[in-house]
Amino acid sequence: MNPHSARTAVRRRDFLAGSLCAFSWTMLEAGGLPAIAQSPPSAGPGSPRLIEDLVAANRILADQGIVDAFGHVSARHDTNPNRYFLSRSLAPGLVTTQDLIEYDLDSNAVNASGRAQYSERFIHGEIYKARADVRAVVHAHAPAVVPFGVSTVPLRPVSHMAAFIGDRVPIFDIRTAAGMTDMLVKDAARGHALAAALADRPAVLMRGHGMTVVGPALPFAVGRAIYLEANARIQLQAMALGGPVTYLDPAEAKAVMDSGENRSYERAWELWKQKVQAK
Amino acid sequence: MNPHSARTAVRRRDFLAGSLCAFSWTMLEAGGLPAIAQSPPSAGPGSPRLIEDLVAANRILADQGIVDAFGHVSARHDTNPNRYFLSRSLAPGLVTTQDLIEYDLDSNAVNASGRAQYSERFIHGEIYKARADVRAVVHAHAPAVVPFGVSTVPLRPVSHMAAFIGDRVPIFDIRTAAGMTDMLVKDAARGHALAAALADRPAVLMRGHGMTVVGPALPFAVGRAIYLEANARIQLQAMALGGPVTYLDPAEAKAVMDSGENRSYERAWELWKQKVQAK
Amino acid sequence: MNPHSARTAVRRRDFLAGSLCAFSWTMLEAGGLPAIAQSPPSAGPGSPRLIEDLVAANRILADQGIVDAFGHVSARHDTNPNRYFLSRSLAPGLVTTQDLIEYDLDSNAVNASGRAQYSERFIHGEIYKARADVRAVVHAHAPAVVPFGVSTVPLRPVSHMAAFIGDRVPIFDIRTAAGMTDMLVKDAARGHALAAALADRPAVLMRGHGMTVVGPALPFAVGRAIYLEANARIQLQAMALGGPVTYLDPAEAKAVMDSGENRSYERAWELWKQKVQAK
Amino acid sequence: MNPHSARTAVRRRDFLAGSLCAFSWTMLEAGGLPAIAQSPPSAGPGSPRLIEDLVAANRILADQGIVDAFGHVSARHDTNPNRYFLSRSLAPGLVTTQDLIEYDLDSNAVNASGRAQYSERFIHGEIYKARADVRAVVHAHAPAVVPFGVSTVPLRPVSHMAAFIGDRVPIFDIRTAAGMTDMLVKDAARGHALAAALADRPAVLMRGHGMTVVGPALPFAVGRAIYLEANARIQLQAMALGGPVTYLDPAEAKAVMDSGENRSYERAWELWKQKVQAK
Repeated sequence: MNPHSARTAVRRRDFLAGSLCAFSWTMLEAGGLPAIAQSPPSAGPGSPRLIEDLVAANRILADQGIVDAFGHVSARHDTNPNRYFLSRSLAPGLVTTQDLIEYDLDSNAVNASGRAQYSERFIHGEIYKARADVRAVVHAHAPAVVPFGVSTVPLRPVSHMAAFIGDRVPIFDIRTAAGMTDMLVKDAARGHALAAALADRPAVLMRGHGMTVVGPALPFAVGRAIYLEANARIQLQAMALGGPVTYLDPAEAKAVMDSGENRSYERAWELWKQKVQAK
Repeated sequence: MNPHSARTAVRRRDFLAGSLCAFSWTMLEAGGLPAIAQSPPSAGPGSPRLIEDLVAANRILADQGIVDAFGHVSARHDTNPNRYFLSRSLAPGLVTTQDLIEYDLDSNAVNASGRAQYSERFIHGEIYKARADVRAVVHAHAPAVVPFGVSTVPLRPVSHMAAFIGDRVPIFDIRTAAGMTDMLVKDAARGHALAAALADRPAVLMRGHGMTVVGPALPFAVGRAIYLEANARIQLQAMALGGPVTYLDPAEAKAVMDSGENRSYERAWELWKQKVQAK
Repeated sequence: MNPHSARTAVRRRDFLAGSLCAFSWTMLEAGGLPAIAQSPPSAGPGSPRLIEDLVAANRILADQGIVDAFGHVSARHDTNPNRYFLSRSLAPGLVTTQDLIEYDLDSNAVNASGRAQYSERFIHGEIYKARADVRAVVHAHAPAVVPFGVSTVPLRPVSHMAAFIGDRVPIFDIRTAAGMTDMLVKDAARGHALAAALADRPAVLMRGHGMTVVGPALPFAVGRAIYLEANARIQLQAMALGGPVTYLDPAEAKAVMDSGENRSYERAWELWKQKVQAK
Repeated sequence: MNPHSARTAVRRRDFLAGSLCAFSWTMLEAGGLPAIAQSPPSAGPGSPRLIEDLVAANRILADQGIVDAFGHVSARHDTNPNRYFLSRSLAPGLVTTQDLIEYDLDSNAVNASGRAQYSERFIHGEIYKARADVRAVVHAHAPAVVPFGVSTVPLRPVSHMAAFIGDRVPIFDIRTAAGMTDMLVKDAARGHALAAALADRPAVLMRGHGMTVVGPALPFAVGRAIYLEANARIQLQAMALGGPVTYLDPAEAKAVMDSGENRSYERAWELWKQKVQAK
């Protein structure tokens, strides 16, 4: 059975039933029907380097096991802060330059051209709106971080590579923000609530779902996602040993971040990028 | 020593000893002796897309670590609901179009042509008989799910990707159904008991053995098997943290399933299929 | 520094110091000096199929993560039960036909020709001596089984794939057999004590070291090593869930073994062999 | 955003602000500005075998998962004990002969030629200064060892492959040595304190950071790093079983080391090297 046909069939049925709450322009676009809403104007192409890095970021996250078929990564437009780039709805490991869509900060597509869009693009748009310092956003379901999102035990830095955590990673519980939902940050209100839970931090866990990680450039957001996942595995094991665990002191975490050593992920970015480009 | 010769020798000895309980037409077929029973008539070839997807499903499950040399996946015939396709006895990672056998719902082969058959094909036939909504069945021994099949701790959804679980995954204990056995669902009665334990759900654990997962199409059955395994790993780790764990609320699980977002595995199927076809 | 030179230097020093307890004909052979002892006569070449399977077994165990640079696998000669084949001292993943050495059951090499030998070949010889039913032996340090060798918690079957365990896997503690040693089964007395701990079973754990697994043919010994390792991982996780664990009943374990279904590893052997031969 | 530009910008800002504590000749060299300090004289090239092994060691540690983008390995110069070789600041998996820099034991570069240097090179220099027996040093963040660095539970030998541990691995807590820092061993004083914590042992854990492992030759330092990581995983699992754990007796550990069997990693080095050279 063709899964695409199954999806379309479901959508068409909902549409014909006149189910207003299930109906949206987004759904029409995703289904390939002609868009009626006006698209926002383009801010022009991003720099070749930004586009290349965004494609690399997609593939790096897949290669490092942070995303699987789901999850996504975006970059703020480098000449217009009111735009961002994000792939069409596609597994990150398959993303190429041609798959990138330009969005405004309300997550309206400039050039979707009927392509299916990530329903959770509002994660990106609302964070860019709330955080002028953020230029890259990663959303992922990395299995190692999910336990800390459903537990009362906070995710804290046990490794200096995760010093960016500071004292702990906050948790966004969509149930608190929006009641009993389908768990997806698929509208502006939910995206806004997620951005509020993130506040001025580099990462937020999403209960029963995954994480969202941000940074001042793609290597930061990608690198933080990778080392947040590593820190989760290490902390779980440290706690399993049974004795007390020594976390980074907040003063140490701050000193690590202030020193900047290794925190730019420059050395790592070179390795990660070379690895995915050699494939 | 040729393991095939060993197998044949054992079978021949049992046969010569006239061990009636070990004797069956199936065994004769598997051993390459001429079949005396009449094969059921064919319902014609499945659609090329179904056959391609079934071969892909076999290889995807191997590639994703859900099956190893054992385990199998079937699809209901797309033009005759009383037939299904399943590989001859072969490791799923090696399956090609030529290896598929057509079965009736009593799991009699239409065209085995003397090829060895999975002894547990009754898992598939009996579920297709009991569940008109099911069009694909996966049986696997994925190590991460086995612990939940031998424990009193239920497997519950901690990740929205496993919302299909609902409140918990039921366990089929073959000991309850059939006493002290060789653990294999190798006849219709055991298959029927397994289908009863599955009831109207998407998955059932098999104590000391593995899991069986179903869906309305191959991407659903395969995707659910993959994310059930992931959820098992996440839940184990969440519990290991020591504090209380927040599972998906049944209302959330229902909302996720109703929304259909990501639940068709459309995006994942494209990735998984491309990965195995590139090999 | 050339590690080979370092080894040779140490040996030569021991030799010149006249340290009788460190001196042996084996050491002379391993060091490349002319052997004075008479080599036992050859029983002729093994069958091409046995030799091919033994090379495959070495590579399969490496590919499946059961051995790393250490560990080894042997097969009893198929026309003379008083001889067995084992690689020269080499990482199993690198073994080819040319690396195989023929041994008598006292683990004297027929055709070492100055090649370095595994110091623990006595594991193999002494088990072949004690167990006429055994035709293949695997020795490995697979990390997942070592915890059960240093714990008071027995390794028991939680998966039907490890039914061969029976009720539990015995542990050989070399400290009990030989006092404070270098942990290696490097002489006949230690090999004899290990064979006694194995008794009539398919596997034995070695405290602080690894496991030794046997079978009536290479696919059995290799398959059992693979599924003993898998069972160890599953049991650890089942216990980590915190509740009581249901193990296979001894009657179930016996029924699985009696049925022979899957126990010949025929289907698995085809997959494993194809995988290493495609490399 | 180009991460390299970001780094340079930060450095330039610190420099212009006249921040003396952040200013150093090293930083100037790393930033590509002309070095004013006199470089120490070269002791000539290392032997081709040493250089080849050091490049291999970098790639082996990456291939075996002991280092990722971070971590480094050095070798003492084989004709002048007051010099050592270490890569320029680069992910170990990418290191080639051309990337090696010669250092004196104060960790001044002989031939950096403006190339960026590892800020933690003092780990290597200070250990070579303190330990005449050491000819190779590995520093890594292997996730499995970090839990033991932040726990009160000591890392002890449960596997004979880690007999070199002796009774336990000491922990270097940089907080004790230098107060609230950025966790990096980036000057001689910190390197000296680390060497003191290592004392006459083969390995030391670094709290919230990783490990440093030494040996009389590259295969020893690399092999010990690999098996220390394996031992950490095994010990964690053995403890998770819940019962008492039997560690190697110190007399056993000593006997293993005295026997020298397997401890030279000769067999492993051949496998590891062949694997990375085949890539």
